[in-house]
Amino acid sequence: MFALDAETKAAEGPEHHRDELRLWLRLLTCTTMIEGEVRRRLRERFDVTLPRFDLMAQLDRAPQGLTLSNISKRMMVSNGNVTGLVDRLVETGHLERRAAPRDGRARLISLTPLGRAEFRAMAAEHETWIAEMFSGLGPGDVADLLRLLAKTKRSAAAAS
Amino acid sequence: MFALDAETKAAEGPEHHRDELRLWLRLLTCTTMIEGEVRRRLRERFDVTLPRFDLMAQLDRAPQGLTLSNISKRMMVSNGNVTGLVDRLVETGHLERRAAPRDGRARLISLTPLGRAEFRAMAAEHETWIAEMFSGLGPGDVADLLRLLAKTKRSAAAAS
Repeated sequence: MFALDAETKAAEGPEHHRDELRLWLRLLTCTTMIEGEVRRRLRERFDVTLPRFDLMAQLDRAPQGLTLSNISKRMMVSNGNVTGLVDRLVETGHLERRAAPRDGRARLISLTPLGRAEFRAMAAEHETWIAEMFSGLGPGDVADLLRLLAKTKRSAAAAS
Repeated sequence: MFALDAETKAAEGPEHHRDELRLWLRLLTCTTMIEGEVRRRLRERFDVTLPRFDLMAQLDRAPQGLTLSNISKRMMVSNGNVTGLVDRLVETGHLERRAAPRDGRARLISLTPLGRAEFRAMAAEHETWIAEMFSGLGPGDVADLLRLLAKTKRSAAAAS
């Protein structure tokens, strides 16, 4: 299951990177806590799943519509997962499919006026939940975190 | 699907919480990027899934063993998901089940020596990956982020 060099490293390696590991675990904990609470509130308040909310959020930011593979890429999930979600939201009248202007075979998916109205209502509440969850931070903290996480994002992208 | 007060709020509400929303999306992006890269490397390097690595990490931190519901709680996933994972790792000789000392009906799950050796080898490499992904941050940045994310964790916990 593992090569000898990894085993040797585990036995001999000095623990140089403890702070980065603690940082990663703390980042993960914060994200998991907030995401779990958002998921719970979306379900209780609107009877909506997080993937459905995320899909509508992507489409709200793209009024011209998105292809299925564009959506998958932005949501970082498989095409198959998105297809079922889109199908259900087309059936309920929240989304529509139409031919792309320059390529009749490609299908663009977008919010209907109903879908947009419902998403905007949920998004407004969602924004207050997020603000509530960060309310223990001062304005300086928020600015510092925004800057440091932008740096983290560049750093992680360079290593990927 | 939504109550009128939410709709009204969406239409009338001034956008006071844009920074917190940006902060949340940035936090989520950093976590998703790093987690995706860890997942990819675990698969390519060790042919191991992230849930399996996470389960072994929980057990490595608890040498006395954990019950199934303890593991579920720590991993924030359902009992059912953990059961299948534990079953497979017992079969391959990485985990063992035994009766709890004070309650013979309760079963404690722990790493076997094989499981511990394999986990430690993976964990050592994992630690270097994480360090690599945060290598664009200075030591001061890491300390600042640790402090600010501890504050975020307390804030999110208070709102949950």
